[in-house]
Amino acid sequence: MSKRRVELSRIAKSLLILLKAEREGRTLSVTELLRETGMPSATFYATVRDALTSYGFAEVVANPRERVVTVKLTDRGRKLATCFEEVGLTKDLGLEEVVEEER
Amino acid sequence: MSKRRVELSRIAKSLLILLKAEREGRTLSVTELLRETGMPSATFYATVRDALTSYGFAEVVANPRERVVTVKLTDRGRKLATCFEEVGLTKDLGLEEVVEEER
Repeated sequence: MSKRRVELSRIAKSLLILLKAEREGRTLSVTELLRETGMPSATFYATVRDALTSYGFAEVVANPRERVVTVKLTDRGRKLATCFEEVGLTKDLGLEEVVEEER
Repeated sequence: MSKRRVELSRIAKSLLILLKAEREGRTLSVTELLRETGMPSATFYATVRDALTSYGFAEVVANPRERVVTVKLTDRGRKLATCFEEVGLTKDLGLEEVVEEER
């Protein structure tokens, strides 16, 4: 359980950024996720990565051939991200609003 | 923002317990919330209380006459609690499932 000691804002921001990227048809690398969330890599590797995967909110997949590690929402993570968006956390966390084209 | 440095599991557990109580027609005091979440009071007063109120997930209301402080979900908090429930965090956090009678 200790690996799940993660800040709400870190998880919410990560999920919202991943949702935004997904809607734009982009798969984010860890590097891109860190840049877009403004999260220090130490924070990601200390708590966020394990929380994302142990809660099953996202998959962190190494692709040795391309030397890149990508982060992808699971169905559960996508649902929670959508919830965070619906309650308006995007604004609380200082992220830009994303207009979903399908709506 | 520092007052919002709160653990996801603390907020999720608090909101789920408050949702359960609300469905049972109960308004929880802080003391009852701490007991039902198993949260140390130091944790509540150091981070959780301020996060609940600054995010607008719950109202913490002192009632001097009855010498009790109650915690009530806001609409936002209720919505997020329902989301946490829908993605199955009740089970992750070791809380009992609540069957909503209205459903």
